[in-house]
Amino acid sequence: MSEITDSEYMALAVQAAQKGNGHTWTNPMVGAVIVKQQHVLAVGYHHRFGEAHAEIDALNQLASSADARGATMYVTLEPCSHFGKTPPCAKRLVSVGLRRVVIGQIDPNPLVAGKGIAILRTAGIAVEILATTQGLNPAYNFFYQHQRPQVTLKYAMSLDGKINAAQKARSYLTGPEAYRDSQQLRATHQAVMVGEHTALVDDPQLTVREVPIDWPPIRVVLLHDAAELPADAKLFEQQTPVWLLAATDSRHQWPDFVQVFVGEWSPAAVMALLQQQGIQSLLIEGGSRIHADYLAAGFADHMIVYVAPIILGGQGLPAIWSDQGKAGTYRLVNQTKLGLDTRFELRRTSDVYRHY
Amino acid sequence: MSEITDSEYMALAVQAAQKGNGHTWTNPMVGAVIVKQQHVLAVGYHHRFGEAHAEIDALNQLASSADARGATMYVTLEPCSHFGKTPPCAKRLVSVGLRRVVIGQIDPNPLVAGKGIAILRTAGIAVEILATTQGLNPAYNFFYQHQRPQVTLKYAMSLDGKINAAQKARSYLTGPEAYRDSQQLRATHQAVMVGEHTALVDDPQLTVREVPIDWPPIRVVLLHDAAELPADAKLFEQQTPVWLLAATDSRHQWPDFVQVFVGEWSPAAVMALLQQQGIQSLLIEGGSRIHADYLAAGFADHMIVYVAPIILGGQGLPAIWSDQGKAGTYRLVNQTKLGLDTRFELRRTSDVYRHY
Repeated sequence: MSEITDSEYMALAVQAAQKGNGHTWTNPMVGAVIVKQQHVLAVGYHHRFGEAHAEIDALNQLASSADARGATMYVTLEPCSHFGKTPPCAKRLVSVGLRRVVIGQIDPNPLVAGKGIAILRTAGIAVEILATTQGLNPAYNFFYQHQRPQVTLKYAMSLDGKINAAQKARSYLTGPEAYRDSQQLRATHQAVMVGEHTALVDDPQLTVREVPIDWPPIRVVLLHDAAELPADAKLFEQQTPVWLLAATDSRHQWPDFVQVFVGEWSPAAVMALLQQQGIQSLLIEGGSRIHADYLAAGFADHMIVYVAPIILGGQGLPAIWSDQGKAGTYRLVNQTKLGLDTRFELRRTSDVYRHY
Repeated sequence: MSEITDSEYMALAVQAAQKGNGHTWTNPMVGAVIVKQQHVLAVGYHHRFGEAHAEIDALNQLASSADARGATMYVTLEPCSHFGKTPPCAKRLVSVGLRRVVIGQIDPNPLVAGKGIAILRTAGIAVEILATTQGLNPAYNFFYQHQRPQVTLKYAMSLDGKINAAQKARSYLTGPEAYRDSQQLRATHQAVMVGEHTALVDDPQLTVREVPIDWPPIRVVLLHDAAELPADAKLFEQQTPVWLLAATDSRHQWPDFVQVFVGEWSPAAVMALLQQQGIQSLLIEGGSRIHADYLAAGFADHMIVYVAPIILGGQGLPAIWSDQGKAGTYRLVNQTKLGLDTRFELRRTSDVYRHY
């Protein structure tokens, strides 16, 4: 029997990590596997935001932590070096006497970034870095590389490029398959944002209804005055966090789940706020002006466009519209038929992402 | 051996008719089969505008026209009753002594419409009408049913619904497969039309270059003043017919292949002119205002939309755009991937076609 390779054990750790999908909020998904003399002694993962890290979860699977002595740990992300919601993992790995630690990816979070590895190496533990697991947490990586959330711009449009039949009317263009897909899209983002016009005309809930989810995305609305949003807006029906980004706030009194940020909310200012708040992924859902502005500002990293085979005519509201504003260049990475509709997924071709 | 049915002989006649595809101009494609005692004696079709009708072509295949005596003819369209470019076929069928004529479709052209059948029946020929071959000449049928050309609106747009990156710049959005397809589309229409803005900004030739064709579509341009089109416009490079529909004509002197129609060219007025000129099919190729106007006027019977997986941004020119203007309801009848692009074909769902 041929020996199992480091990559194969790491693949096992990646598989374990993915069990945390949808539950780790702004934490990365992480998996860990403990191996001694070709035997897998334990498999662990980060179950949920605020709970044990993957390394600790794996150690907890052992009958006794003494079993870890002399063993190898495969972990998809560099063990942490700082006191966060839990004590630093790197110190724990030293204390249990691991002989070797194989790491999938160096942590891009500057609080860790190499410091975890340094702790292990200083303690005499052999450390290897495979640099193969970056794809596991794309938004997490993007956030620390570019100091802002990764932005997905999403809309459904007609075959004449309109998102609404008129400026002041909400239109339902796509079928149930596209609806379910867009719910899934919301579930995988940490914040969802719309502009004032969309908030007032469409009166959306911006909630995730079709997918069970621990951490629903924060619902962000850009407004001139926070009070423009009526108290009976559907947005306030579900009590998950709402952030109102407004130039003024003439209401002042808000329910607990609503937070108002007063300021000048240019795309760059919004990026800065979300970065400060640790939001790693943002889904923009309209309207046409916001789409144009974020495209022009260079912040639209991904685009998801649902095309419905209908025609809305000359009075319809364009998907992207402003008197100034260009767009970067995009590459089609996926095209899927969803019922009568078609889903196009685009990614910016340039690696030059715009930092705020 | 079971007897061959009328439908099967008619299918043979339809096959023959289709050999005339692209050569019959405003004439319908027609096929004819002569059968006697279960033997196919002759197969004919209308080869080309101005040449023999299918019935005559079939008779010409016989060693002697005496062979037609007592035979059955299957013909996809009612034999004509009037002197056009050729003498009336119905009279010829009587004179050769056919016993029976099976007709695919009554001719919708009011010059014929039942009169050919009357001639045959009066002469004692047994006539049967299958009413199965209407699909062979859709524009021809449409033209006589609705007293105007069948209109196809065609454009290529980005995934944000734009046809040009800016108001005053031509953009090439789609790839070679869509280009070839749109050339094919031109080849199957009797006239191609653009508005002034498209003519001036895009400077198109509006010719069929990729498909061999006997009767290139008439190139129609809507203009305020006919002279706005510069003498070196690409439109004038090829000397096939150009019709300028203008409110005024301050140039007066034009090459032979250019005809100027001075008038108020509302969509309804354009339909009336084309009807008078016998044009049965019109392809509209831009720009956004004309699209909106013809949609709003209820004249866009078919739509062909090529979607290119690119984003042009807020400054782009919408595919359909006007401050007033609605659209009918459409049904997706076909969706095809053409290289990186996607071709959508829509048809108006309502049977209530707009007459001018």
